[in-house]
Amino acid sequence: MILKIEARLVYRFDQRCEVLLLLEAARSADQTVLSESLRIEPQVEIARLDDRVTGERRAVLVAEGDLTISYDASVEVIARNSRPGEGAVSAVRELPGEALRYLRPSRYCPSDRFESFVAREFGALHSGDQVAAMLAWINTHVDYRAGVSDVETTALDTFVDRAGVCRDFTHLAISLCRAAGVPARAVSAYAWGLEPPDMHAVMEVYLGGRWQLVDPTGRAPADGLVRVATGLDAADIAFMTIFGRGEHVWQTFTISRTA
Amino acid sequence: MILKIEARLVYRFDQRCEVLLLLEAARSADQTVLSESLRIEPQVEIARLDDRVTGERRAVLVAEGDLTISYDASVEVIARNSRPGEGAVSAVRELPGEALRYLRPSRYCPSDRFESFVAREFGALHSGDQVAAMLAWINTHVDYRAGVSDVETTALDTFVDRAGVCRDFTHLAISLCRAAGVPARAVSAYAWGLEPPDMHAVMEVYLGGRWQLVDPTGRAPADGLVRVATGLDAADIAFMTIFGRGEHVWQTFTISRTA
Amino acid sequence: MILKIEARLVYRFDQRCEVLLLLEAARSADQTVLSESLRIEPQVEIARLDDRVTGERRAVLVAEGDLTISYDASVEVIARNSRPGEGAVSAVRELPGEALRYLRPSRYCPSDRFESFVAREFGALHSGDQVAAMLAWINTHVDYRAGVSDVETTALDTFVDRAGVCRDFTHLAISLCRAAGVPARAVSAYAWGLEPPDMHAVMEVYLGGRWQLVDPTGRAPADGLVRVATGLDAADIAFMTIFGRGEHVWQTFTISRTA
Amino acid sequence: MILKIEARLVYRFDQRCEVLLLLEAARSADQTVLSESLRIEPQVEIARLDDRVTGERRAVLVAEGDLTISYDASVEVIARNSRPGEGAVSAVRELPGEALRYLRPSRYCPSDRFESFVAREFGALHSGDQVAAMLAWINTHVDYRAGVSDVETTALDTFVDRAGVCRDFTHLAISLCRAAGVPARAVSAYAWGLEPPDMHAVMEVYLGGRWQLVDPTGRAPADGLVRVATGLDAADIAFMTIFGRGEHVWQTFTISRTA
Repeated sequence: MILKIEARLVYRFDQRCEVLLLLEAARSADQTVLSESLRIEPQVEIARLDDRVTGERRAVLVAEGDLTISYDASVEVIARNSRPGEGAVSAVRELPGEALRYLRPSRYCPSDRFESFVAREFGALHSGDQVAAMLAWINTHVDYRAGVSDVETTALDTFVDRAGVCRDFTHLAISLCRAAGVPARAVSAYAWGLEPPDMHAVMEVYLGGRWQLVDPTGRAPADGLVRVATGLDAADIAFMTIFGRGEHVWQTFTISRTA
Repeated sequence: MILKIEARLVYRFDQRCEVLLLLEAARSADQTVLSESLRIEPQVEIARLDDRVTGERRAVLVAEGDLTISYDASVEVIARNSRPGEGAVSAVRELPGEALRYLRPSRYCPSDRFESFVAREFGALHSGDQVAAMLAWINTHVDYRAGVSDVETTALDTFVDRAGVCRDFTHLAISLCRAAGVPARAVSAYAWGLEPPDMHAVMEVYLGGRWQLVDPTGRAPADGLVRVATGLDAADIAFMTIFGRGEHVWQTFTISRTA
Repeated sequence: MILKIEARLVYRFDQRCEVLLLLEAARSADQTVLSESLRIEPQVEIARLDDRVTGERRAVLVAEGDLTISYDASVEVIARNSRPGEGAVSAVRELPGEALRYLRPSRYCPSDRFESFVAREFGALHSGDQVAAMLAWINTHVDYRAGVSDVETTALDTFVDRAGVCRDFTHLAISLCRAAGVPARAVSAYAWGLEPPDMHAVMEVYLGGRWQLVDPTGRAPADGLVRVATGLDAADIAFMTIFGRGEHVWQTFTISRTA
Repeated sequence: MILKIEARLVYRFDQRCEVLLLLEAARSADQTVLSESLRIEPQVEIARLDDRVTGERRAVLVAEGDLTISYDASVEVIARNSRPGEGAVSAVRELPGEALRYLRPSRYCPSDRFESFVAREFGALHSGDQVAAMLAWINTHVDYRAGVSDVETTALDTFVDRAGVCRDFTHLAISLCRAAGVPARAVSAYAWGLEPPDMHAVMEVYLGGRWQLVDPTGRAPADGLVRVATGLDAADIAFMTIFGRGEHVWQTFTISRTA
């Protein structure tokens, strides 16, 4: 599948400050960036802190005044064959070293707090069956609803509130997986098929010896996702981090299929 | 300085489970491991998940029954010249890519919650001066006292309780630094000069273009620390993570200076 | 039913301090105190802050050194006809004024946090049916287990941990009821039939125009409870509050049926 | 001082629901209501749940559609002689029974969490001196600023955020007082002299054998306050509690001095 992305962001910065953009399609094994351009108006210098291992693209710029950020790309997504309900969970000793930290609790995914719940409710299941059951539980017990969560909302809050958006579903799913001993991480992506088109927060679980992408809200198919950033939770994958103060003016994302 | 380490840990595992040990001296640039041995009795196979980039040593074993873990090492610590009160804080665009994540909030260091406090109390200071002032604040306002914190205690709790142990001091110091825009991370270490000798949780801040090791409790000199693990917070550097259930029987750490 | 209570508590106070005891059977409409005696050795003066409206008995003493507190009573419990699954919930305007505050969140029962959960899971039910369904939910989803909670544990923690003791069951049940608009409060009681005999924390809900006593753990029958204190949550009904420092040496409670 | 109050509130209720209004001047010993009128348009029946002991006025109505609530009153405030920096703290055994619960933690004032902070920072002071020092600490370390807190904000959050509005100052002040063993409670009041005129949340401490009213923000003099509701914290004194859903359209408060 080839997806065309158009992102337009307008922000206002009253004071000069640095901005980290995680907005560009990752140079990862599961997709090929056919063409892309990142433009800032007025023009500013862009420093690159790209991660060569994961292919995550990181742009840092010094912002001041009104800034228009335009990102256009054409990306071919390679069939991901995500089947999180099928693979086996790996023994810790068989994990790739980088997977280890995705077993641990993080700011928005305090998985340690969910260990007794997971053992009690899903302890009889294993591997893919367990992950599938946990994802089903989330969809049965949590409503997709905007306005109930904010930037401080953790998986614990969502577990109690029983409502949230993609970020919250993903945090809860990651927390349950880690509590079950399954490495899980957060991925930001351009999602084809969402209405309205938007950046999306989804989960990646390590099952069957590989990372498998899955949308805990069930709204976007894995093969319609263009990966941007990968990390522990929302703290790692926000598409814009402002080191100072900035004001969102408006933004739009268009994701369309060209093949 | 050459330090000799003897660690003896006895644990009981009623059921077979995996155990991750972050117990061995890191192969990092700031120290040289002259000799070492890790022995488990009864003998079990040890899988290695070492991190080649950071030099962190990770051993995974399958535990069952009573296990005695013995680690002996002789390590030369290279003069670290830690002067966290002197260096300049780097612009984000000048950070090494791996430092970026140490600006973000984590499980036990919710630095986002401290941004207004840090701006209000330390906003007039910068770089090393600011870090020094924050470390001084912690030592003035927090008491070193055992028994007030546990494995769920976050920097927020310590900020309110005004008491804790090395782990808590380190979490609070890291949180304040990150809230101030200074990358900070947790390091576990064998600490020479502590009474009783013990494993120690300390902080590393990125100032003056390099990581500088500092003990927020002020109890151990940087050059008497043998680095073991490095990470976001206690979740990453625990010397033993049991994937199942295990019971601590006893443990001792001896750290002595041989040169 | 006539119940005989023998409570023996031994505490040590290194420094002189005041102690509030909520240890005596209440002079409430649902029970008659046939005889009782409260003795402290060595003898100290007891000030009384009894609540004449509710009949709650409150003794305040100045403690120092080793203190043995003995309370013996014979209490006739009047048949309570507790049927929390049957009554209708009152309109707010029909509530007795004193019931109003039992609709509000408190320290350990942050009922405001449970409103969306209750609306989602139990919103189709009303009054007694709703209360019965919530009590059944708690018994299905929470395990009675000591050691997972402490004095800071709130209903929110228990909702996540899915385990706790009588205090935790009661806090969660109260929280769900208040979130559903049903006044609910905490009651401490001597419970006949518990093994081992102990002081017990139970709930009282206002349904059918009267307060109905119910044990959310399902372990003690309402007619085997001798009421002591009544309040918002554990903060109000602790049998001993030490305004200073004291050390528990030992304590025993015996509750037997004499008729 | 005689104060004239005009409150106008317009709310919209899409569905029929009950509303509790704590909007009328209390019939308390420290003020005399010279005249007043509470009108609802369109006219609805008002049930009264007034508290005869405290003089708190509570109106309950069934709301539906657009409702305009008008409250006009003329109230003479009797000189309160509030000097919270002077009185002595009472022994528990000398407290009036009703004061006891104001020593305990509540939903927004988890005073138990502040005991070690208070002992550490203010432990050398006592009674009025201690209360004065704690109030001074709050004014030095917390900024009056709107927009940083919401209905879930507790004193713990404010202690960390170091900013808030009257509700937050009051919650923090109450928490510190209770942690110090000084009974403290929340009072809602019409405040003369605030700019803009508004309902205000203030604190009452029990010192010198009587309740003393004080505004922890230092913005309103005690004698310019018309008392409305009194309780543990914001959960008890909200001027409007909607048992269902309602939408705030607009509201204005005018408080002027007529003598």
